[in-house]
Formats: sequence, C-alpha cells, structure tokens
Amino acid sequence: MPALPDKHRSFIEWYLEVLELAQLTDKRYPVKGMNVWTPYGFLARRQLDRILIEEIEATGSKPVEFPTLIPQTEFQKEKEHIKGFDAQVYWVTRGGATELDIPLVLRPTSETAMYPMFALWIRSHQDLPLNVYQIVNTFRYETKTTRPFLRVREIHFFEEHTCQVDEGHATARVESNLGAFARMARRLGLPYLAVRRPEWDKFAGAFYSIALDAPVSGAQTIQLGSIHHYRENFSGPYNIRYEGPDGTSRLVHQTTFGLSERLLGALVAVHGDGKGIVFPPEVAPYQVVIVPIPSKMGPDPRPWTEELAGRLRGRGLRVEIDASEDRPGAKYYRWEARGAPLRLEIGGRESAEQSATAVDRLGTKVPIGPVGIEDRILGLLGEFDRRLYAAAEERFRASYATAATLEELTGSEKVRLIAWCGEEACGHDVERAIDGALLGTIVGDPPLPLGAPGPCVACRRSGGTVWAVAGRPL
Amino acid sequence: MPALPDKHRSFIEWYLEVLELAQLTDKRYPVKGMNVWTPYGFLARRQLDRILIEEIEATGSKPVEFPTLIPQTEFQKEKEHIKGFDAQVYWVTRGGATELDIPLVLRPTSETAMYPMFALWIRSHQDLPLNVYQIVNTFRYETKTTRPFLRVREIHFFEEHTCQVDEGHATARVESNLGAFARMARRLGLPYLAVRRPEWDKFAGAFYSIALDAPVSGAQTIQLGSIHHYRENFSGPYNIRYEGPDGTSRLVHQTTFGLSERLLGALVAVHGDGKGIVFPPEVAPYQVVIVPIPSKMGPDPRPWTEELAGRLRGRGLRVEIDASEDRPGAKYYRWEARGAPLRLEIGGRESAEQSATAVDRLGTKVPIGPVGIEDRILGLLGEFDRRLYAAAEERFRASYATAATLEELTGSEKVRLIAWCGEEACGHDVERAIDGALLGTIVGDPPLPLGAPGPCVACRRSGGTVWAVAGRPL
Repeated sequence: MPALPDKHRSFIEWYLEVLELAQLTDKRYPVKGMNVWTPYGFLARRQLDRILIEEIEATGSKPVEFPTLIPQTEFQKEKEHIKGFDAQVYWVTRGGATELDIPLVLRPTSETAMYPMFALWIRSHQDLPLNVYQIVNTFRYETKTTRPFLRVREIHFFEEHTCQVDEGHATARVESNLGAFARMARRLGLPYLAVRRPEWDKFAGAFYSIALDAPVSGAQTIQLGSIHHYRENFSGPYNIRYEGPDGTSRLVHQTTFGLSERLLGALVAVHGDGKGIVFPPEVAPYQVVIVPIPSKMGPDPRPWTEELAGRLRGRGLRVEIDASEDRPGAKYYRWEARGAPLRLEIGGRESAEQSATAVDRLGTKVPIGPVGIEDRILGLLGEFDRRLYAAAEERFRASYATAATLEELTGSEKVRLIAWCGEEACGHDVERAIDGALLGTIVGDPPLPLGAPGPCVACRRSGGTVWAVAGRPL
Repeated sequence: MPALPDKHRSFIEWYLEVLELAQLTDKRYPVKGMNVWTPYGFLARRQLDRILIEEIEATGSKPVEFPTLIPQTEFQKEKEHIKGFDAQVYWVTRGGATELDIPLVLRPTSETAMYPMFALWIRSHQDLPLNVYQIVNTFRYETKTTRPFLRVREIHFFEEHTCQVDEGHATARVESNLGAFARMARRLGLPYLAVRRPEWDKFAGAFYSIALDAPVSGAQTIQLGSIHHYRENFSGPYNIRYEGPDGTSRLVHQTTFGLSERLLGALVAVHGDGKGIVFPPEVAPYQVVIVPIPSKMGPDPRPWTEELAGRLRGRGLRVEIDASEDRPGAKYYRWEARGAPLRLEIGGRESAEQSATAVDRLGTKVPIGPVGIEDRILGLLGEFDRRLYAAAEERFRASYATAATLEELTGSEKVRLIAWCGEEACGHDVERAIDGALLGTIVGDPPLPLGAPGPCVACRRSGGTVWAVAGRPL
C-alpha cells in the first residue's frame, strides 16, 4: 500500500489523501466545493450533530428551522452584515420561466431570515430569553481554494441565535455558550483556545466575536467555531423589541453561536496519523469493527462474531462486522484508515473460547474474554478515549510558544503567544511578521502556562498589554 | 375560547386554524409557501424522521447527503424528467456579482444530482445493490395555493434511491419499500391504500409509480408518499453500468421511495378533532405533559411533579412540565390543541399520595399510582395508541364506497372504488365524473372488503377489469 504524505511537512496533501482513503467524502460532484456526504462521512456527521444537539439543548435551547431562501429586501437591512456577505452569496433570480420580482439569497447564515420573525415572536419580557438553534446547510460563493469540510460552498452548519433582555444577559449567554463548547470539544477530543478576534476581523455586524481555534500543524490553526455578541446591532434594524416590566419598549440584545462541518475536518486534522483517521469513540461511525478470520481448522468464526456484535449493540455500541471477501490484512488497513477506535479479531481459537483479540487504533493489542467481554470492551474504549485526548493535549501544548519580538514570528513553526498593546497598527505588524493573522486576545483561563504579559511585541510599549495569539489560519 | 371550524364541512379552514392554535408552524415568513419550523413543529418532525430512519435502515439502506444545487447540464439529461420539472424549479444564476457560467437548479428531487455519482460508484455486480437515502429539503416553485406541510415551496423530503442488477430485483426493492412503509404507517397510526398510478399520472421518468394514499375528508385524499420503478430509464442517460459476472456491461435498474413533511400534515388531518391535533405517542413532541395545580392548602405540587417527570424520562418518555403562570384550564386547552397524548394533573392530594390524575387526549380520565405509576403510564400510552389506530381504521373503512356507475361518482362524499378496464379514455371519464382523479389501481391485498370487479364503470365492458380508486386529491 502506498504511504500517506507526511502530515507535518505536507499537511494539506496528507489531509486530502486521508479523506480519499477513508471515503469520508466524495469531491467529484460536478459543482466545485460542493461535496457528497458518503455513508461513512454521513454517519460521522450524525454523531457529531448528536453531541451538539445534546449539549445545546441541555442549556435550554430549542430546535427550529428557518427557510433556506431570504428575500433581498430582508437580507439588506443591516449595513455591516450585507457588506460582509454581499460578495459571496448565491442569488436565486428565476422560478420556472419567471423572473422573480424580489431575488432570493441562499442563506450564508440566518440572521436575516430569523430576525424579521423574532420581531413577531417577541412581545414582552416573558418571551425572553429566546434561545433557538438550527442545524442546516448554508451557502457561500467561495472564491478561495475549497477543501472538504474546511472550506466548502455548501456548509453543514449549526447556528444558535438568542435574544436577551439586556447586554449583561447577552454576555451571560456568551459565557454559557463557552461552557457548552468546552463540553462539546471534550467529547470530540479537541483541545482549543478561545480568543476575542480583533476589531478588524470580527463577524460582519457583531459588537465582538469570540473564536474557538485549534492548532493543527506548525503555526497553522483552524477555527472550530465562533460566538458573537451583537448588542443591539441587529435588533435595531429588525426592530426586535419587548415591553419591559415598567412598560417601556426596549430593543433586545442578541448573541449567536456558530459551528460547522469544520469540526469533522478538525477531528481528522488533530487526531489523524500516518495510517489515516483516528476517531474518538463518541464520533466514530463504528466504535467496534469485528473481523472474522476463517481458517481451515477450527470452528467457523461467524456465529460467535454475530453473537458478540449483537451483545455489544445491546450495550449501545455501534458495531460493524467486516464480512467482505478481502484478506484480513486488507481489512485491518481499511479500518485503520477509516479510524475505527477498536478492532476485534476473531479466529478459530477466539471462536472456540468465546474471546477476541482487541487492537485499538493507537496499536495496543490485548486478548480479551471470555468472561465479562462486553464490559472489557467498554473499558477499552473509555481508556482509548482518555489516551487519545491526553495525546492531543500534549500536542496542543507543544504547538504554542511565546515570542517577545517580531523577528521571532517570521517563519515561525509554532503558534505564537505575544503581548499586544491593542493598537490596530501593531496588530498588522504582527500579521505581516508571521505572514498570517493576529487571531485575537485570550479569553478566560487558557490551558497554557502564561505569566503577566511583557511589552508589546510590535511597539515595545510596556503596561496595558494583554496576551494575544498569532498564527496562520487554514 | 372560539370553537374551531367544523372539520368535515370546512376541512381546510379547520386544518389551518389547528396549525395556528398548536403553533406547529409559522407561515408569516416573507416568502410565500416557505414556512418556519417552530420548536414544537420541529420536535414532531424529529420523531417522524426517527421512525423513517429506523425503518429504512432496518432494510439495509445507508444515509447519504448530496448537494442542494444541480448543474443545468446534469439536470437536463433525462427528457421526461426535465419536462416534468422544468416549470417548477428555482434557478441560481448569480454568485456574488458574477453571472454563473452554468446555472444551478435548487433540487426539486435528487435523481439528477445522484445519478452522475452513481455512475462513478458502481463498477461491478459486487457494488450492487446500492441502497441509499437522504433526508433533505427540496424546492418547487409552486404556483398553486400553498398549505403548510401539504403543498409548500421548500419541502422536508425523504428520498431513497436504489440500483439493482435487473428488473426483478428492482421489483423486489419496490416490495421491500411497501413493507417498510407499512411499518412506518402503523407507527404513525395512518391507514392507507397503495395504488399504482395511471400512466398519465406517473412520476416524470418512471416506468411505473405506486402511491400511498390516505382518505382525509369526504372524497378527499392525501398522497403520503410514493415508490417508483425506473427500469433503465435513468441509468441509460446517466450511463450507470456494471460488469456482470459474465463480463458483459449492463445498465442497472433503479427504484426510488419518496416521503415528505406531508406525513405530518396527514397526521394532523387524520387524527385531529374539534379540539386540535391528536398525536400518536410515537410522534408526539411530548408524550406526557404534567400540569401541577397549586392550591392554598395541601403540599406544593412541584417537587412530586419534578420527581415524576425525572422517573418517566428515565423510562425513555418525552415529558414536559407546564410550569407557566396560566390557569390549569388554559393549560388543558393548550395541550389538547397541541395533541399531547397524555396529561397528568397533580394537585395537593396527588402530591401527598405520590399519585396523579391521568387524562388522555381522547378524554379518558383515570386516577393512577402511587404503586407502579411509571408502568401504568407506559400502559396507558400503549392503550391510547391502539385506540387511536382503531378509530382511524374505522374512519378509513367508512371513507370508501364502491360505485358501479359514473353517476354515483358525481358529487361523491366518499372515495370511490370502481371497476376499470384500464383504458385511458375511461379513466378520464371517471375523473370528469368525480371532478377529481383516478388515483390508480389497487396494489396488493387492500384492507377493504372487495369481491371480483364488475364491468368497467365507464365503458361497461365486462372482463379484464381491475379495482381502481377515484377521489379528490388535496
């Protein structure tokens, strides 16, 4: 079998080949940047969505779904927002043979679809908070090079939109979202850093934007998601008002929380290795793959394979039996490439004993059973998840280094932690030096050892600086 | 509270008011025929989707998702298909400020998106059968009056597409789909009739089409879904071929199975009554709604309410506590309108006893508990489901009547079962007489008592006639 490209030297080549090998997507669809979700990719996405749904609903958010098409008239109500999106939206101009009176936009995000309705839904403070989310596809006429899951033209998207009584409650919702994301990210095994994006890089129309970034390779980072505080920036133009307890009419304060199929790309990027994908058990389409190994002597392994699969499914596990005609070695290779956390090999001996040989995706091989075999497998999966996360955390910590001067940023092979005075000019100096972006200032307590920040990396001014992050976003 | 319109005299008025009252959808979105899935509607749809997914995956179908946009060049490959859809597709013609070289169609259905890829996926007979399905939104530029769930411009859609080695295997897949639909329909509590649509009403491009129709009110029927046999009609133009075991290249035979949010509209239409929706427990967003009734004397009902809710959730039930400030009567009214199968009233006495007063949506009221209260509630839900289905079956049987002459069809208040010779001219005579449609010939063993068919209702010719159905599709 041909070896994969080196992940660290040729990250994108490695990434694209891994996706092919695992059949996680098919990018031969005849519209550039719009890919097909294959069964295997779809099953991974289903688990990903399940985690997002469980965590966001636990915070009281309700599911909704708004239409895909937005009338031009609604789309253009908030000036900054339309400036940010105008160049990259698809326009529907015709229905059958009829030119539409009002062209329709394929949603690039749903502020302008939802907020006219929020204005109808909200009347009094009893209608607040309004916390709703949807998981839908969004569309961007992307002009940069597209990459499956990372930059596509049809995007599988999670978006929460909330309305709160005032700025303080909106800030509290941002914090609640940060907590929800922390729980999601742990289940996905993804260490990350929350940063407040600089003013020149915030979401079109936001008061401020918090991004959730993960280091990938060298100084490269990937944005996993974002949380925005809108203050009254949208509720003004869309006239989303409520009557306060004192009878006055007030604008709501709004927040949003966005995640996408990029999380799946990030999972591949963060955990993958020289053999292919490594899925955390929570997301794996199949957590356990059983490979029966027929031999001329010894009993037929299939009955025990079937029984064990049934027992494991009864314990809530997702189990696949690879009953194809390929040789065992080809099956091992396939399920390593596809990232199955645990493989069970069942030959004649295992069949006779009602046992199995378990090999996890990190290479640990142990004989298990026959006593308590289901519990043992659940235990191995838990242990695998902890080891996978610990390894990801170690690589995460090793991805960052402080830099005290602009020179250290040039050609950096690490994501850089820098002291920044907050001036835009200094920020742009940083971006030029690293040939990337000033990703933002660190929010909350970072999972990295950092003392007090020194003088600004660019202007050298002391005092009033904060820790910021510079890297090269994918 | 104002009474709902009479369901039988003014079906559509009743239907629209029930949807408003239950807040199952919001049709004030500023694009006609594109409605908002409210939280309550979305939760019902989630259960509906779950049933479809469980039943189709049990037959070996795998989930996929193809892009929303289809290039004009692919869309136009099958001539009948394009004729059928050309007048009702939305066209994307612009991305940002750029006119697209090749306009894109918003999928009205996904044959033309999937089949170019199937041609790449299928190489040999080992790749067959290919059974995949997706649940996505489709789009039709509908010129008729739109109605939530029944006729909309953005449609929540289930579509299975399969490729088989030959016509016989494709016919077997059609039969497998009929079996899967029978199981889905039972779980939704929807009696229906499977009919083979006449030639002039089959799906654009199909060899034949089987429709799954339910009677609604008078002679009105609603199409719940359809199953199509395509033979080689699409695999020819899309060149979907495989190498047979003998080395020859052959075209696959294809089938599709389509369902949509109409099922939700049908649920409302079939089970609803003068108070609103009646949800079967499988689909109900909340299967049990608990109404705590505070009183000045007696213990606070909230602790027992919370405990009971927790215990029922532990048994897998979807439970809502209505803790709003409304009076108990207003809560009963609300949850009757919204169709919750079972309401539990908990006042001071129930709280003291750890019991409840259970009232099901058909009006049966019983005291339950404290011993074995969870089992009792599960039992009541099962019983409710059986009674609901039995009542629907009884109305189903009462909706049909045979007609031996065209005169009997005129102004008919029933769906009519007629003997038909199969001639198109006779079919059109039937359609004119009933002022509706010849829905098709009965497939399989109908759940209605029917002897041998007599002479054709139109031309009076004896012999060679079959039972057909005539009604007025919604």
